[in-house]
Amino acid sequence: MKILKSLLCLSLFLGSLTSTAQKADSPVNDSAFIKKIYDLTLTQSHCHDWLRHLCKEVGHRLAGSPQAAAAVNYMQQLMLSLDFDTVWLQPVIVPHWVRGGEEIVRIVSSYEGNGFDLRATSLGNSVGTGPDGLRAEVVEVHSLDEVEQLGKEHIQGKIVFFARPFDETEYYTFRAYGKAVDQRVWGPSKAAEYGAVAVLVRSMTNATDEVPHTGTLHYVEDQPRIPALAISTFDADQLSRLLKKGKVEIYIRNHCHMLKEQLSYNVIGEIRGREKPEEIILLGGHLDSWDVGEGAHDDGAGCVQSIQVLATLKKMGYQPKRTLRCVLFMNEENGLAGGKEYWRTSNEKDEYHMAAIESDRGAFTPRGFTVDGHPDVFEEKYAKLLRWQPLLKTWRLEFSKGGSGADISGLKSQKGLLFGYEPDSQRYFNYHHTKRDVFEAVNKRELELGAAAMTALVYLLDQYGLD
Amino acid sequence: MKILKSLLCLSLFLGSLTSTAQKADSPVNDSAFIKKIYDLTLTQSHCHDWLRHLCKEVGHRLAGSPQAAAAVNYMQQLMLSLDFDTVWLQPVIVPHWVRGGEEIVRIVSSYEGNGFDLRATSLGNSVGTGPDGLRAEVVEVHSLDEVEQLGKEHIQGKIVFFARPFDETEYYTFRAYGKAVDQRVWGPSKAAEYGAVAVLVRSMTNATDEVPHTGTLHYVEDQPRIPALAISTFDADQLSRLLKKGKVEIYIRNHCHMLKEQLSYNVIGEIRGREKPEEIILLGGHLDSWDVGEGAHDDGAGCVQSIQVLATLKKMGYQPKRTLRCVLFMNEENGLAGGKEYWRTSNEKDEYHMAAIESDRGAFTPRGFTVDGHPDVFEEKYAKLLRWQPLLKTWRLEFSKGGSGADISGLKSQKGLLFGYEPDSQRYFNYHHTKRDVFEAVNKRELELGAAAMTALVYLLDQYGLD
Repeated sequence: MKILKSLLCLSLFLGSLTSTAQKADSPVNDSAFIKKIYDLTLTQSHCHDWLRHLCKEVGHRLAGSPQAAAAVNYMQQLMLSLDFDTVWLQPVIVPHWVRGGEEIVRIVSSYEGNGFDLRATSLGNSVGTGPDGLRAEVVEVHSLDEVEQLGKEHIQGKIVFFARPFDETEYYTFRAYGKAVDQRVWGPSKAAEYGAVAVLVRSMTNATDEVPHTGTLHYVEDQPRIPALAISTFDADQLSRLLKKGKVEIYIRNHCHMLKEQLSYNVIGEIRGREKPEEIILLGGHLDSWDVGEGAHDDGAGCVQSIQVLATLKKMGYQPKRTLRCVLFMNEENGLAGGKEYWRTSNEKDEYHMAAIESDRGAFTPRGFTVDGHPDVFEEKYAKLLRWQPLLKTWRLEFSKGGSGADISGLKSQKGLLFGYEPDSQRYFNYHHTKRDVFEAVNKRELELGAAAMTALVYLLDQYGLD
Repeated sequence: MKILKSLLCLSLFLGSLTSTAQKADSPVNDSAFIKKIYDLTLTQSHCHDWLRHLCKEVGHRLAGSPQAAAAVNYMQQLMLSLDFDTVWLQPVIVPHWVRGGEEIVRIVSSYEGNGFDLRATSLGNSVGTGPDGLRAEVVEVHSLDEVEQLGKEHIQGKIVFFARPFDETEYYTFRAYGKAVDQRVWGPSKAAEYGAVAVLVRSMTNATDEVPHTGTLHYVEDQPRIPALAISTFDADQLSRLLKKGKVEIYIRNHCHMLKEQLSYNVIGEIRGREKPEEIILLGGHLDSWDVGEGAHDDGAGCVQSIQVLATLKKMGYQPKRTLRCVLFMNEENGLAGGKEYWRTSNEKDEYHMAAIESDRGAFTPRGFTVDGHPDVFEEKYAKLLRWQPLLKTWRLEFSKGGSGADISGLKSQKGLLFGYEPDSQRYFNYHHTKRDVFEAVNKRELELGAAAMTALVYLLDQYGLD
């Protein structure tokens, strides 16, 4: 038995000597290895099938929902079937918000008459109106400041309509989102502070269309919690037009509420490093999604890409020097409980994440990676990355400085580098947080190219490190 | 009256002195001007509306069809309404191929039975089977060479099925297309040479789906003309599977044929240069499309983008040094008559196209421009472009060496530079030459970003020239 084991070890050792991966000591070999990563991912990967299962068999999966539990189970089984060295679940207590039924947002009085329904969706974590709904006059504003300026005199008893659109001149749509989303996140409490009874928000998207976009709000501690809903951009334009002509009254009814907190999990799988197992390279996305659509781009794609990275390297017989860990975070959308629990325990255990890569910007054609890190080490480590630019340029990938991902942001104190996988951003907000974010909206090749890009980066990080 | 005219001239002159465009003598000003191009195009352009009209009101527009005539008329009126200096139609004699009705490709005998229809579309310029159709056994091949190797013995009287798929490992999907498309273009005549009665071709796409892709074939002079059709990739896979199990017989009926040649037009509009009007900067796309879908990506997008470039510069009050000419070519898809007529007369008149830019690769997010030119001047002129890389990098645009566009390729002898506008290529062959190539498949921002990228390049070419 012992002899057999020794022989096995020897053969593994010989195998490792002859594999391309282990000879990757020159740009030529690196280039060939990366080409092989792409070839395999584009022809033999399974991430598209996994995404189909997650979207079509499990469906949308807001934290605390039965589907979220089913998603945890599916992903755990998937990692086990791929024979990662270790697969485990990390317990996380998550909020359990439910929509409770369809919303009504109805114009009941306006210059042009009444009875028009606006296409609306409750914001995540919003309270409901109760079964009778509420009716009030609408006041349009374009910023939180404008609420303050108008003051109680104009806000008290009203529905505040936050109508500031995306700035179309921002090339990166995430910047336009960043410049508009304060209305959705902080608008409800700000309006409540001045006596508003409810909030409507123009949907967060570049497109003028008829699909409302949900997303989380944050209620401030000392303010009343009032119902808040997003309306489609087309309907927002119509409402603005009506308000220019005169008084508009709206009836709102929604049913959402918080249930008891739930026990859920981050799903984690890893391949242990052979030389420096204490240096962790994390790949991740978030497993929860909003309760509309199927969470395909946001963020089923990031989950299956992260798993694919490990699966591809395993298939290539690559034996990593460092520990490769895939983490599927729970509750990114309406609480970040999974991310917070992961950092807390990781920091407590004094782990060192040499690098963490989150994919949470959709499954579009790769453009590169944005990179973030602790100021003590960032510039020095970022400079090291630039050596790899020529290798990645073949695949039209670039590094740039910028944020990484919500779920990994709390690892910064470990002084590794944090990466955000960056696909093309132009179409993302056509799907984000809507019923349109379904499996069919994901292009197979674009999904796979993203997985290949992440695998190439992981390979270089593992081979050469950052220290 | 004369005084009034002088005053007008003076005010135009003063206006030009103060416009940003005329002060563009430093990278800072160029950068600001290009930013303004993007801002205007993303907020005030009309190319998306023009494309809607072309797709929804005119529809698909194969050369010779009534819709092609309607498209010529619409585009001429559009250019006139935009007040270009000169708008004219260049007569072109075009072939007039018609599909004549729906195709049938039916499995009438196989290991698994009969009566299955394959989703098929006649190739452009194909002859029809006649009303009775034809029935024959299928032989699968993977190359033109394989037809020769099999020889008359195995080909005579058969339907030859060209089944070589796209090479998924090609990052650029146009390369995969280039490696597979010989089967569609030359396959029919090659099969006919060895006695085949018809040809089926696996559709030219990366995707495995149920939509057949048409596209042109070329009949070689001395060979019999046999009917040729594309089948969807899903059905091609099924047919290959069946052929592995045994003999397959197929019944084909299609109705296509050539009608009499037609008089049609290239639609041309230009803004005359103030300093070097003899140096032409051409922008173009092709106005014809296949007779399926709406020719949105291919190439309504290129047409409206080209017009938008001139419209944007005009709106900015920019007065070009060189002549900016927008050319919408007729009959690119099944003959290239428009392109050929344009080169012939341009070369005859000794025109100098300092630069020509064709947009004919879809309306996806811009990646840059591929550049081609006469070997006598190419390297020198290409080197000049590279000075502008830093300016264009802000907008994530790159120059690379490569082909330009079919319609402008014959201008190479004039020794300017030829550019192919290069959007992201990953999704193009999901739509190319199919019923899916409709207005809704085009993203407004991606279309506009393409127009802005082309405008930025035109601005730099006009300001600084290439000589």
